[in-house]
Amino acid sequence: MRMYDLIMKKRNGGILSGDEINEIIKGFVEGSIPDYQMSALLMAIYFQGMDQNETLDLTLALAASGDMTDLSGIEGIKADKHSTGGVGDKTTLIVAPIVAACGLKIAKMSGRGLGHTGGTVDKLESIPGLRTEFTSAEFAGIVNKTGLCIAGQSKNLAPGDKKLYALRDVTATVDSIPLIAASIMSKKLASGSDCIVLDVKTGSGAFMKSLKDSLELAKEMVAIGTNAGRKVAALITDMDIPLGFKIGNSLEVIEAVDVLNKKGPDDLYTVCEALSVRLLELAGKGSYKECTCMVKETLDTGAALEKLIEMVKAQGGDASYIKDTSKFKKAPYMYEVKSAKSGYIAFMDTEKIGTASTMLGAGRKTRESLIDYSAGIVLKKKYADKVAEGETVAVLYASDDKLFKEAEEKFISSIIIESQKPEKRPLIAASISGNKEEEIYL
Amino acid sequence: MRMYDLIMKKRNGGILSGDEINEIIKGFVEGSIPDYQMSALLMAIYFQGMDQNETLDLTLALAASGDMTDLSGIEGIKADKHSTGGVGDKTTLIVAPIVAACGLKIAKMSGRGLGHTGGTVDKLESIPGLRTEFTSAEFAGIVNKTGLCIAGQSKNLAPGDKKLYALRDVTATVDSIPLIAASIMSKKLASGSDCIVLDVKTGSGAFMKSLKDSLELAKEMVAIGTNAGRKVAALITDMDIPLGFKIGNSLEVIEAVDVLNKKGPDDLYTVCEALSVRLLELAGKGSYKECTCMVKETLDTGAALEKLIEMVKAQGGDASYIKDTSKFKKAPYMYEVKSAKSGYIAFMDTEKIGTASTMLGAGRKTRESLIDYSAGIVLKKKYADKVAEGETVAVLYASDDKLFKEAEEKFISSIIIESQKPEKRPLIAASISGNKEEEIYL
Repeated sequence: MRMYDLIMKKRNGGILSGDEINEIIKGFVEGSIPDYQMSALLMAIYFQGMDQNETLDLTLALAASGDMTDLSGIEGIKADKHSTGGVGDKTTLIVAPIVAACGLKIAKMSGRGLGHTGGTVDKLESIPGLRTEFTSAEFAGIVNKTGLCIAGQSKNLAPGDKKLYALRDVTATVDSIPLIAASIMSKKLASGSDCIVLDVKTGSGAFMKSLKDSLELAKEMVAIGTNAGRKVAALITDMDIPLGFKIGNSLEVIEAVDVLNKKGPDDLYTVCEALSVRLLELAGKGSYKECTCMVKETLDTGAALEKLIEMVKAQGGDASYIKDTSKFKKAPYMYEVKSAKSGYIAFMDTEKIGTASTMLGAGRKTRESLIDYSAGIVLKKKYADKVAEGETVAVLYASDDKLFKEAEEKFISSIIIESQKPEKRPLIAASISGNKEEEIYL
Repeated sequence: MRMYDLIMKKRNGGILSGDEINEIIKGFVEGSIPDYQMSALLMAIYFQGMDQNETLDLTLALAASGDMTDLSGIEGIKADKHSTGGVGDKTTLIVAPIVAACGLKIAKMSGRGLGHTGGTVDKLESIPGLRTEFTSAEFAGIVNKTGLCIAGQSKNLAPGDKKLYALRDVTATVDSIPLIAASIMSKKLASGSDCIVLDVKTGSGAFMKSLKDSLELAKEMVAIGTNAGRKVAALITDMDIPLGFKIGNSLEVIEAVDVLNKKGPDDLYTVCEALSVRLLELAGKGSYKECTCMVKETLDTGAALEKLIEMVKAQGGDASYIKDTSKFKKAPYMYEVKSAKSGYIAFMDTEKIGTASTMLGAGRKTRESLIDYSAGIVLKKKYADKVAEGETVAVLYASDDKLFKEAEEKFISSIIIESQKPEKRPLIAASISGNKEEEIYL
């Protein structure tokens, strides 16, 4: 095998075999295949695509480039949930305790935030004392004892994907659906769970801006997982509007706890219920109706909230913050963004809203930036809401009041107010699973 | 300017500006743009192409990456000729003396052979004593005195092209017509001539195997040269059959001298006449008819042969070898390839014939290989010729008789013999120039 010939093969529209893909990833990780050949291949893949077998082979090769997490020490059905990233997306903090309360085991590795989207690990670390780094034995111990643990990604999880992503990131080869699908699924497969629900976001705040691309990505990922022997389903959920009202780290923990207390916003609950039900169905816990009842019960009885408290304790965090979220440190400065005119909110550029939150200190501008856990945005008005001139549309929080000017400008530029009330948007656009026909709810 | 954005722009079908292309080539040559970004851009160019302005800008940027040869010290009209490379292609050794005898100045830099094609510099160096490396002053002095000089390529001629070509060569991005055109024309423009005739070969022994690709490349190169203010024309000539009968270094010098003595093969003379006439026309030496007469006269009077003798002397070579080509050292071994059956030669895979000649020692297997000047092939039969079983189709020459077996096999595998006489092929398929409509002779 010469890398030159494989680039040529893909460039000319050929199909790479499993052996060829394995050799490529092995050589790339070891360094015997130079970056300049890999980036030429990546660009050829961007143009020629990859078929389902190639994408599966790439996923498996990337997964196998590092540690394959062994969850055999954990009893029961291991479940995982992945979101492609959005603004105000705190669903993991809600879905994980719900399904754990229903008896599934959540041994989850989560990422940190970068750019306009937040990361679950950052949000959790806003709880004083809470740790997200564990040895494998500690990790399995916590899951066995409490039913769930959310850890930071192990450094040797799919290192081939890390190296490949870094190259894609500087060669304009990120937005290729097979490459995105393989990247995400390599980490999911290496994480070892039996059942995986994927929350593929679509819209202005999502990585995939169009429903068509989101559907394609979801189908590709479900196919990979299913062909790799896992139970996988995906929901396409709306990210044309931030999820819930709160954006920022401790702000999102607070809103997640509100949902578990049945006091959270409807949109956020609806998405969390759908993800939880889908995961329970995959795990064979019952019919759609039965699983929906189970989910609701975990909130009615407080079992889900109790699971979150157990997890926070087991991870070394101060659980009194969950019991009383008013204990979270508040940002020293706040600023009310007022509407310049009356009408209805007809569009929210959700990526820009995420960027405004990052500007306030809630996110990282570079990989090394420190996060201000108390910073962020609380929306007062959302899509389709009526606003009067001078009315507050959002409240910004920061530790430095000099940050407000730029963030306010960004926020204001993200919103379009029109005189007519816009049409309602579906919160869940489609559901895809390996053995069911795709269901489109549009 | 961020290289990332420029890769993205081209990937998405955008047009790069002259400034952007200059920055890219400058950064790439300096090393501030890494190979992995350049190869991603090259692959994007492979798929998205480049328009005429982009190709011109790239050509100019590559030409300007090194020394721009200053030919102002040479009086008269400076003319150049370029072949895209073929087997048995000794036209430069004939065309240069002819047009020099008609008063044009040929200050030519030529390449060495690599792979299945030979290089003019190697062929010339088979003449004892002949030098091809000169200072600029020496070079200009020889051209002023004798009207022509053929030197090796200066080391700093378009170094950006050299670096770019090396990267294309390992990333499967060689065969992109705008990139090929820019590569060739950058060296032609940097070489400084006013009038340039391009011999674009087409067929089994050429870089461009199809007439369509050859035409596209020729048009692209003529457009670049014309837009850069030079007078440029191209002929598309047949390389589905080796040119002439002799392949190898001193063998080709001998055949070139035969043509200048009016004893050469018809096909070789026809192509040389056409190239010479085209160059004289570009230089404004007269009409097609007048230029054709001038060319014939240089042979009738012996003026062209005299020019070659003057050049060889001026370059330090022993001109007695030109006056009496039987002085060239003969290969110690020869081997006759016999036909296995009777019929007509219906196809000659000319690249394979070139490779067979390289195997005998006439060409380089790697950039470091030494050349055996006396090695090569003399064809006894060519396309459409009748052969009887057991008749000699070619004679192989080498300094080591162990080389014959493999070379014979390669040669035999290159020839198809059929019972029916095949149709004649046109020797010159098309003529393209900047101010004339393209003429197709098919």
